[in-house]
Amino acid sequence: MCAAPVAAGLPRPGEDALIARYFAPLALAPGAAGLLDDAAVLPADGASDQVLTTDAIAVGVHFLPDDAPGEIARKALRVNLSDLAAKGARPYGYLLTLALPDDWREDWLAAFAAGLADDQAAFGVSLLGGDTIRAAGGLTVSVTAIGTVARGAAVRRTTGRPGQRLFVTGTIGDAALGLRLRRDEALAARAGLSPAEAAFLAERYVRPRPRLDAADAIRRHAAAAMDISDGLAGDLARLCAASGTGAVIERARVPLSPAARRLVAAEPGLWPAVLAGGDDYEILAAVPPERAGDFAGEVAAAGLVACDIGVLTADSSVDVLDEAGRPLPVGKAPFQHF
Amino acid sequence: MCAAPVAAGLPRPGEDALIARYFAPLALAPGAAGLLDDAAVLPADGASDQVLTTDAIAVGVHFLPDDAPGEIARKALRVNLSDLAAKGARPYGYLLTLALPDDWREDWLAAFAAGLADDQAAFGVSLLGGDTIRAAGGLTVSVTAIGTVARGAAVRRTTGRPGQRLFVTGTIGDAALGLRLRRDEALAARAGLSPAEAAFLAERYVRPRPRLDAADAIRRHAAAAMDISDGLAGDLARLCAASGTGAVIERARVPLSPAARRLVAAEPGLWPAVLAGGDDYEILAAVPPERAGDFAGEVAAAGLVACDIGVLTADSSVDVLDEAGRPLPVGKAPFQHF
Repeated sequence: MCAAPVAAGLPRPGEDALIARYFAPLALAPGAAGLLDDAAVLPADGASDQVLTTDAIAVGVHFLPDDAPGEIARKALRVNLSDLAAKGARPYGYLLTLALPDDWREDWLAAFAAGLADDQAAFGVSLLGGDTIRAAGGLTVSVTAIGTVARGAAVRRTTGRPGQRLFVTGTIGDAALGLRLRRDEALAARAGLSPAEAAFLAERYVRPRPRLDAADAIRRHAAAAMDISDGLAGDLARLCAASGTGAVIERARVPLSPAARRLVAAEPGLWPAVLAGGDDYEILAAVPPERAGDFAGEVAAAGLVACDIGVLTADSSVDVLDEAGRPLPVGKAPFQHF
Repeated sequence: MCAAPVAAGLPRPGEDALIARYFAPLALAPGAAGLLDDAAVLPADGASDQVLTTDAIAVGVHFLPDDAPGEIARKALRVNLSDLAAKGARPYGYLLTLALPDDWREDWLAAFAAGLADDQAAFGVSLLGGDTIRAAGGLTVSVTAIGTVARGAAVRRTTGRPGQRLFVTGTIGDAALGLRLRRDEALAARAGLSPAEAAFLAERYVRPRPRLDAADAIRRHAAAAMDISDGLAGDLARLCAASGTGAVIERARVPLSPAARRLVAAEPGLWPAVLAGGDDYEILAAVPPERAGDFAGEVAAAGLVACDIGVLTADSSVDVLDEAGRPLPVGKAPFQHF
């Protein structure tokens, strides 16, 4: 779930307020969790639950017009698989709605389908259904993904408690910096990035990596989790709001890739993009302190890294502290894809 | 699933060809039925299956820019509930993706949500999850609807057999004629329609009526069924292609509302709109002849009407016969919302 800077004119609610005001009252089924979560959880058979999530991506908002069609397809699927990973679920399949502009070409569509085919094989999912419509305005791809999890084992966003450690998988900020590099062609050279570093960051924007390999550890040890799609600071605030907690994290403990580290060292003004820029598709997990070692160890055994960046607190403030322990002016408003 | 007249330029496949070529190979799960159906059917618990379907609507294609927001919301939900009805399923819930143009207004959104609330109450469904994104091009609403049906009882599109009678619920052509009336303001007067008749047809375009009340009879008696979204003639051709049959139907037996009858009597050139115009959201069902009486009787007992319009045949041609028994030049190409 995502929102853009409000255009000129009347003030309008952001996405979270909009959902709370207009859509949460429609979420009557218990499994919908009042739309406070990334996903709905429905009873399936006696031993398992079904996890359902939907996310859409649109040209100019979530991807750029010149992104390769196969990458757009992968991104549409992966941002949904990322939600399943955060719930500790195993993906099963997906439904796809493709709203195509009038000037679509068959070779574009062939490459789009090929990207899906690759990712289906990589993640073990099947297309279950879909719809293809014409949409005058530009490409939009909407996916509903379905996963399974042992009965009652789905990890919620609402169940964090004070004292739990906050972990993130992977590295934070790469995608937002990659988008900056694409929008400012001189930035890479100015910051002294190598071509490989610049390419790494750009690729992190184009091709999210759903952390399904961490799903087992999340399910076994995390008390609460969500994927980070709209920026670490804002999504942390969402987890805290859903759980009724506050949080303190330390910027110095937020894991950065070498490329991101070099870029923010050269351009410290990019820190807000790192902490609040969106498109990370890493997992934010709250883990009871006594499980923290097992959690980090099992994530590592799965080939990923989970870093402890802070703690949930009993008050309601969500603070990102700088190296001197002072709260940074970042973190209250999630990045608004919307 | 739907497509628009091909724009100038290279020939491009229609939606059915596009799905067969690029997306059917991705439908690996058995429940996806090779995308030959309106819906996927997945095992749920021991006694029931889950039915999943997705359909999207876009401004300028499936609704008009000045349609009331509550009606747009209802239509997005109802076109999906219509698919569930055709499978004999009972609706449970839905996920919603709302791609909003930049100039959305909060009062518009409030009315949109109010339309959903009304229909949730009317049809007994709950919102389960969603995503709200910004989309530069114009409003698109994508819904994934979820229903349940007794294990193995979902009615497929692929299981029609020669000799089965073809039924349609309700009346055909109203919505397509309603759209014509909106696009040609002089048409109603020219054809001598009363204001009530014109309003009836216009309303049939704006507000589909998913035939959920017929779902039990469909499940008990129909061998195959689908909803008619892209025109009777074209959707009949789809059912036949999926079932490996042909069909013969008689235009004189196709049920028309009094308003539609008056309009085509005055303007016989509108017959193709009636038979192939789309947006009916009635059910087309193939029923074994020995069940035809029970089927029609149970549909009637549910407050609806099902009319026998023809029969599935053993050859591959799909013919709509005129009053003299001659095939009409209509019926091979479904109306293309896409």
